[in-house]
Amino acid sequence: MPRRCVSLLLLLQLSCCFSSGSCGKVLVWPMDYSHWMNMKTILDALVQRGHAVTVLRSSASILIDSNDESGIKFETFHTSYTKDEDSIAPCGELLAELLNRPLVYSLRFTPGYTYEKYSGGLLFPPSYVPVIMSDLTGQFTFMDRVKNMLFMLYFDFWFQTFNVKRWDQFYSEVLGRPITISKLMGKAEIWLIRSYWDLEFPRPLLPNFYFVGGLHCKPAQPLPKEMEDFVQSSGQEGVVVFSLGSMVSNMTEERTNVIASALAQLPQKVIWRFDGKKPDTLGPNTQLYQWIPQNDLLGHPKTKAFVTHGGANGIYEAIHHGIPMVGLPLFGEQHDNLAHMRAKGAAVRLDWKTMSSSDLIDALKTVIHDPSYKENVMKLSRIHHDQPMKPLDRAVFWIEYVMRHKGAKHLRVAAHDLTWYQYHSLDVIGFLLACVTIIIYLVIKFCLLVYQRLVMKGKKRKQD
Amino acid sequence: MPRRCVSLLLLLQLSCCFSSGSCGKVLVWPMDYSHWMNMKTILDALVQRGHAVTVLRSSASILIDSNDESGIKFETFHTSYTKDEDSIAPCGELLAELLNRPLVYSLRFTPGYTYEKYSGGLLFPPSYVPVIMSDLTGQFTFMDRVKNMLFMLYFDFWFQTFNVKRWDQFYSEVLGRPITISKLMGKAEIWLIRSYWDLEFPRPLLPNFYFVGGLHCKPAQPLPKEMEDFVQSSGQEGVVVFSLGSMVSNMTEERTNVIASALAQLPQKVIWRFDGKKPDTLGPNTQLYQWIPQNDLLGHPKTKAFVTHGGANGIYEAIHHGIPMVGLPLFGEQHDNLAHMRAKGAAVRLDWKTMSSSDLIDALKTVIHDPSYKENVMKLSRIHHDQPMKPLDRAVFWIEYVMRHKGAKHLRVAAHDLTWYQYHSLDVIGFLLACVTIIIYLVIKFCLLVYQRLVMKGKKRKQD
Repeated sequence: MPRRCVSLLLLLQLSCCFSSGSCGKVLVWPMDYSHWMNMKTILDALVQRGHAVTVLRSSASILIDSNDESGIKFETFHTSYTKDEDSIAPCGELLAELLNRPLVYSLRFTPGYTYEKYSGGLLFPPSYVPVIMSDLTGQFTFMDRVKNMLFMLYFDFWFQTFNVKRWDQFYSEVLGRPITISKLMGKAEIWLIRSYWDLEFPRPLLPNFYFVGGLHCKPAQPLPKEMEDFVQSSGQEGVVVFSLGSMVSNMTEERTNVIASALAQLPQKVIWRFDGKKPDTLGPNTQLYQWIPQNDLLGHPKTKAFVTHGGANGIYEAIHHGIPMVGLPLFGEQHDNLAHMRAKGAAVRLDWKTMSSSDLIDALKTVIHDPSYKENVMKLSRIHHDQPMKPLDRAVFWIEYVMRHKGAKHLRVAAHDLTWYQYHSLDVIGFLLACVTIIIYLVIKFCLLVYQRLVMKGKKRKQD
Repeated sequence: MPRRCVSLLLLLQLSCCFSSGSCGKVLVWPMDYSHWMNMKTILDALVQRGHAVTVLRSSASILIDSNDESGIKFETFHTSYTKDEDSIAPCGELLAELLNRPLVYSLRFTPGYTYEKYSGGLLFPPSYVPVIMSDLTGQFTFMDRVKNMLFMLYFDFWFQTFNVKRWDQFYSEVLGRPITISKLMGKAEIWLIRSYWDLEFPRPLLPNFYFVGGLHCKPAQPLPKEMEDFVQSSGQEGVVVFSLGSMVSNMTEERTNVIASALAQLPQKVIWRFDGKKPDTLGPNTQLYQWIPQNDLLGHPKTKAFVTHGGANGIYEAIHHGIPMVGLPLFGEQHDNLAHMRAKGAAVRLDWKTMSSSDLIDALKTVIHDPSYKENVMKLSRIHHDQPMKPLDRAVFWIEYVMRHKGAKHLRVAAHDLTWYQYHSLDVIGFLLACVTIIIYLVIKFCLLVYQRLVMKGKKRKQD
């Protein structure tokens, strides 16, 4: 795999290319980390329904484990990248084009929603739809709208100028004809978006965009014996679950001690997913784990609060089980996710680089003791659970739909066939303005002619 | 009811105002004719699920029958209108406001989609979304886009200038405060649209808009004995079903004879819903009926073609059962429905005012013998049947959803809270342009100052 193929962060989570008919062969170009965890839920469901699923994993894959025994077939290709580089990249749409097979995406977002907009045809009016990675929510002041417009212009500029060109060049080289990544992505039949109106603020959608946020959530399973004993030892005070996800690394000793000393002062027991050096200030109420069954813990009746970096998977587990959050966002859309949760009254957000121990204690006390946080997250939980179809069923339905119908072109807006000036009706507006101008010109010309004739006649009469 | 309350054609089919909580009391402001037939399907389902449904019918109602024994309660109010005037009007949103209850719409469309746009917040980019009542389909030439833009401007002008003001005035009088119908309609929680991507071309939607087209369709039931015998007597040639709906009236004797003589020349048997004077040219293969079980006939294996005026109910029955159509549109969106069916290769369209007998014969021969028509309508039928949820279940789900959640404000875009210039970001654009202008001005001023200083210094040096 050429090195240039690894750069576009968070673009594709799942691209499936289907063989024709309903024979159910699914080829998958995955992304790593939490994206893989989420996607694997879909793939397991497809395998259970009898489909043959093949995943292309690179030799630098981290969580995409070829020893997985769930029935998924893995094909490993060599890359010069190491596991330390970020093993996330597009190319699914290129594979689909090469194999001439229909394509389905599953993703949380692309930066600034630029690919959803320029490839998918989705509309994001900047006056009320917060641009992702802008840290804005759906309740705009005038200055928020200014900020949102600037973010939109920034991402549009970034998309048009920097990000796309190298991929256009690479894809053109591979296919041997001039092509753009945007054009290839626009051929996708269905876009499965890992979100829903519990997390998101309402905005326009298209017929081939479906929300599947929280598809990995499920009822809590029993905890391991030792963990259950620890949880039960918390009594009436309950438990706080603390996890900053699968990608956190560069936390200093000073920061871990700030966190540990705050947790030590809580009356709750704390389960902290942390695989660094044990902090000096760690209290007896806190237990460290290299890995935790997060969904089962958040679904445990003793759990009172969740300290999270705000990744979409964790946010959805908290919404699913109705647990208020304290957010310490690290990067990407985690800031947006937590901004949304705060705006919806289900979370308190802190800056993990500058927060003090007392900030963290205050935040946890607030979400545990102010009943509005529990009420609000329960409202989101009710919205999440009250859908016509479960998110995982919806994802599987639309993937199988593409198999049954050999695509879903009847759900794809005609905007894809228009140039940007046609899309914005600029040629039509120009034509109509030209018509109006010509008509006005002819009317004036006619009036002048009539006037001149009258004047001439008048003069003639005078001369006569 | 004041007379002015009866004018806005095809606006509301169903407005339900719910009492709070999940006690399931539904108040309905209905529309008549085919709208009522469609809506009654929803109400019957609600009654079956234990909800108390009350329908407000006017004394001029035609098909809204208070002797109906399905468990719906009818309240009749007096109107000075007669049955001959068109008994269709808004006011559902006014009732919802007066009773302070959440509101759900069910409708096919409003003229030019103006209310969906200005009240519902829906986006209709004129470059690829055909304006309803424009007779355009989703495949635009340049001149189609010009025509579509002109239709959009026409309906916008019509909406802003003529149609809305009288309702604004009436609603303001009733409520005793200045209000607009558009504002009240914008409070609707859910819009159930009687369409789907089988009939429609893809376009943007919002989270509180759901398609429920064809909810009234069901598997065919056995025909009455006499009708079944007639159908079976058609042998291999099969049957043509002919119906121009519940509102056709002004057909001349000349037109009925043109139709009857065409039908007489077909090898098929014909079932014609017609309650006028028996045409002289009626053939022995044609039977007239004042009413027909249209859904059961279209679902009969002997049925080869459907001659229809293009009302949404009939179109959906044809799609549901996969029967190719010959369209004779009369008014309203029937032209658009049939233009869509023709564009999708499932219908031939004729002008019923000018067509000759041979036109009708040719059209019927085409849709019966050219296999592409059957294939295309079967493709639409597969799209129609392959939905995650049946249209009627979807309608009931979202109505009950509004009951469970006491509304659905989390699905309503923030566009409703913006003025038109805020919505189009004109204030933001103005502000940013002003900022850029001021910055350019200051930079030029600064450069001039520096230049002047340098010149002054140069002069001073020379003087020194």
